Amino acid sequence: MVDVGEKTPTRRAAVAFAEVRMSPRVVRALKSRKNPKGDAFSAARVAGIVAAKRVDELIPLCHPLMVDQITVEFKLKRDRIEIRAEARCEGKTGVEMEAMTAASVAALTLYDMAKSEEKGIVIGPLALARKSGGRSGLFKNPRFDSKVRGGGWL
Amino acid sequence: MVDVGEKTPTRRAAVAFAEVRMSPRVVRALKSRKNPKGDAFSAARVAGIVAAKRVDELIPLCHPLMVDQITVEFKLKRDRIEIRAEARCEGKTGVEMEAMTAASVAALTLYDMAKSEEKGIVIGPLALARKSGGRSGLFKNPRFDSKVRGGGWL
Amino acid sequence: MVDVGEKTPTRRAAVAFAEVRMSPRVVRALKSRKNPKGDAFSAARVAGIVAAKRVDELIPLCHPLMVDQITVEFKLKRDRIEIRAEARCEGKTGVEMEAMTAASVAALTLYDMAKSEEKGIVIGPLALARKSGGRSGLFKNPRFDSKVRGGGWL
Amino acid sequence: MVDVGEKTPTRRAAVAFAEVRMSPRVVRALKSRKNPKGDAFSAARVAGIVAAKRVDELIPLCHPLMVDQITVEFKLKRDRIEIRAEARCEGKTGVEMEAMTAASVAALTLYDMAKSEEKGIVIGPLALARKSGGRSGLFKNPRFDSKVRGGGWL
Amino acid sequence: MVDVGEKTPTRRAAVAFAEVRMSPRVVRALKSRKNPKGDAFSAARVAGIVAAKRVDELIPLCHPLMVDQITVEFKLKRDRIEIRAEARCEGKTGVEMEAMTAASVAALTLYDMAKSEEKGIVIGPLALARKSGGRSGLFKNPRFDSKVRGGGWL
Amino acid sequence: MVDVGEKTPTRRAAVAFAEVRMSPRVVRALKSRKNPKGDAFSAARVAGIVAAKRVDELIPLCHPLMVDQITVEFKLKRDRIEIRAEARCEGKTGVEMEAMTAASVAALTLYDMAKSEEKGIVIGPLALARKSGGRSGLFKNPRFDSKVRGGGWL
Repeated sequence: MVDVGEKTPTRRAAVAFAEVRMSPRVVRALKSRKNPKGDAFSAARVAGIVAAKRVDELIPLCHPLMVDQITVEFKLKRDRIEIRAEARCEGKTGVEMEAMTAASVAALTLYDMAKSEEKGIVIGPLALARKSGGRSGLFKNPRFDSKVRGGGWL
Repeated sequence: MVDVGEKTPTRRAAVAFAEVRMSPRVVRALKSRKNPKGDAFSAARVAGIVAAKRVDELIPLCHPLMVDQITVEFKLKRDRIEIRAEARCEGKTGVEMEAMTAASVAALTLYDMAKSEEKGIVIGPLALARKSGGRSGLFKNPRFDSKVRGGGWL
Repeated sequence: MVDVGEKTPTRRAAVAFAEVRMSPRVVRALKSRKNPKGDAFSAARVAGIVAAKRVDELIPLCHPLMVDQITVEFKLKRDRIEIRAEARCEGKTGVEMEAMTAASVAALTLYDMAKSEEKGIVIGPLALARKSGGRSGLFKNPRFDSKVRGGGWL
Repeated sequence: MVDVGEKTPTRRAAVAFAEVRMSPRVVRALKSRKNPKGDAFSAARVAGIVAAKRVDELIPLCHPLMVDQITVEFKLKRDRIEIRAEARCEGKTGVEMEAMTAASVAALTLYDMAKSEEKGIVIGPLALARKSGGRSGLFKNPRFDSKVRGGGWL
Repeated sequence: MVDVGEKTPTRRAAVAFAEVRMSPRVVRALKSRKNPKGDAFSAARVAGIVAAKRVDELIPLCHPLMVDQITVEFKLKRDRIEIRAEARCEGKTGVEMEAMTAASVAALTLYDMAKSEEKGIVIGPLALARKSGGRSGLFKNPRFDSKVRGGGWL
Repeated sequence: MVDVGEKTPTRRAAVAFAEVRMSPRVVRALKSRKNPKGDAFSAARVAGIVAAKRVDELIPLCHPLMVDQITVEFKLKRDRIEIRAEARCEGKTGVEMEAMTAASVAALTLYDMAKSEEKGIVIGPLALARKSGGRSGLFKNPRFDSKVRGGGWL
């Protein structure tokens, strides 16, 4: 574990992006919320948020963090679900892992909800779209940052 | 949560595959194990195994399972790390989520280890390569099953 | 901890009932799902289900159990939310605590969602409505069993 | 999850009140500490305190908090146990949920200890008795605040 | 993780022994239960039992187990506390780690309760006193088995 | 739980020392890393670090802490493994329990890895070697502080 004792807490934010690829039929089934396991998106959102608060248990060398906010949002495309997860905190280390973990566990939860209908679902790409705060300042990954901007997220 | 009370326990297995894409320089840095956070692969393996045992906490509608075995293995390619995660159990429900979660958390742990050296790392595809046991019997996803077969895993 | 080693596993079920009392205005606010914290009922359902799977961590002397199913349902009355939580398993000990804990944590989650709008919300009564299986067989608490029967639960 | 990033940390406290209603015989059995599961009140206190430290895992949209203190106390009445749970912290959000969860899990633990002797035990009312700190300042619920004041708690 | 899929479940038991060495004054302070942190032995018992149920989370390669019983008992000597922890299950793998972890976390809890009064407290030896069940059958460590036999435990 | 609300956060550090005694043959087996369960030392390090971040869940009356760093290191002697665990934080309470728990869980993990080869392994002594920060300032336990100083740790 890296020693962060000398670091000064700053306001930090990170946004992760993930895709869950499935057939249009399964996207529609999830959308109609008639999935036999219940409302897939609410469950995936809650799962992602709770997992983000447990990053220091899941990822061995992550520091504990007091997150100020975690959001998980979805966009339904024809053949995939897009996930946007954002984490904010005031702390000594970045919140990338919180955003990445929220997106990852939300994706796994959607996978779990849909896997009885389609075995070939693929998760990914999962990547950091942008982050701010800390010594390295603003970072944007052009390939993914464009995907997490704009509205239409539910 | 689906009621599995009437199901008969059978021997089940599932193998998941994941990739973590990074520059060849960062693959070499992880390989030389001189990563400042320590031995990345051992930490990722442990993290994946432990997460697989907590699937019912992470994925809201998953049933608790008594896993018989979880393995997490790695293959180092020029520009990516490949992950093979396998779960086995004797139970009423499948172990896909255990294998998928093990691969996912192992990938996130490698990401965490390498993110200070490269911000553009991408996780994915993450997919079920094969599963066996249960009512639906053997399933193989041809695109990924070929990747998890054969040796050379560490 | 009571030794259950000599007990024979049987099919068991338990249903718990809980009420969360609040003003009609706040019931309507939760119902319209325009609560600033999101869909309160989906979050409460997930929270109750996940907590029921962790009963052996929360309640010190409870045995670990492999639940087959947990359901959490709601009924919106004029001045209160009624909660029905059911747990099923095949095991050596009863699932009362799983049903009671699911109802309790679902109630706390609704409280959390609504507390910014009304500070005087009251949780309770929370009670076992019925249980079956095990040596003591079927039990019904007349005061609460009538409340968990019938339809109209969402 | 509400964004608390702009909030200023202040000293906060909250007191919750709960009742566990049972027959006088069972109150006496718990009091004599000859309960077959051991000292019920110590176990319930520990369970409540530990649960309060895990509120952000149990209640999906709660923020992590660094509690300064949690206390759980009991008063034995003829036909019920009264529970007083207090939480204190210096933070950006209130500690109501920590106090409410401590009282709730302590009540469930007492229920678990006594349920083999009486199936009709009822938990509730459970309510916030008072809170202080934060923007909204001091709040007292007259119905319950009178119950948590004064001595005689063990 | 070793694959236990082919193993047959058998009844298993394990007893661990631990010592916490401190000055006679501190033993007496714990005994009088006037410790400022509360009843040390009840808290240590609960902590040990709960930790034993979470061994598969704490010890990376341990399998999940459905324990039938865990007991943690204490003996107060002039200059030390002796701890006896026993675990029982019907399973494919032994319960040594459950007994060892229960004793270890109970010892750490006593240490935590007493550390403000004496900084030089020493934990150990901690060892397996006996185990039974499984392929290897009965094992007794003569040095420690004599210590966990007989009465006088509280 | 002691109220730490009035305390001022200071920089704190603690170092714990532990021994795991086994036959020279088993030390060599662990050293050659040909242990059937994998790299014992990496797994033990990760287990110790993760457990230290969960001290407030494991030890009932411990306060949550935001650790800045945890390190777990090993020294292989002829007939034992020595463990050095260090924790650092900026907080209102000391980090002794984090260091002690990290050493304890690392020791249990090594025990788990080696127990199939030798049943008579003994853990201990486990003790605080030194601590600094807080009102009581620097403390060194001469018996153990000499053991955690100097190099040669892996």
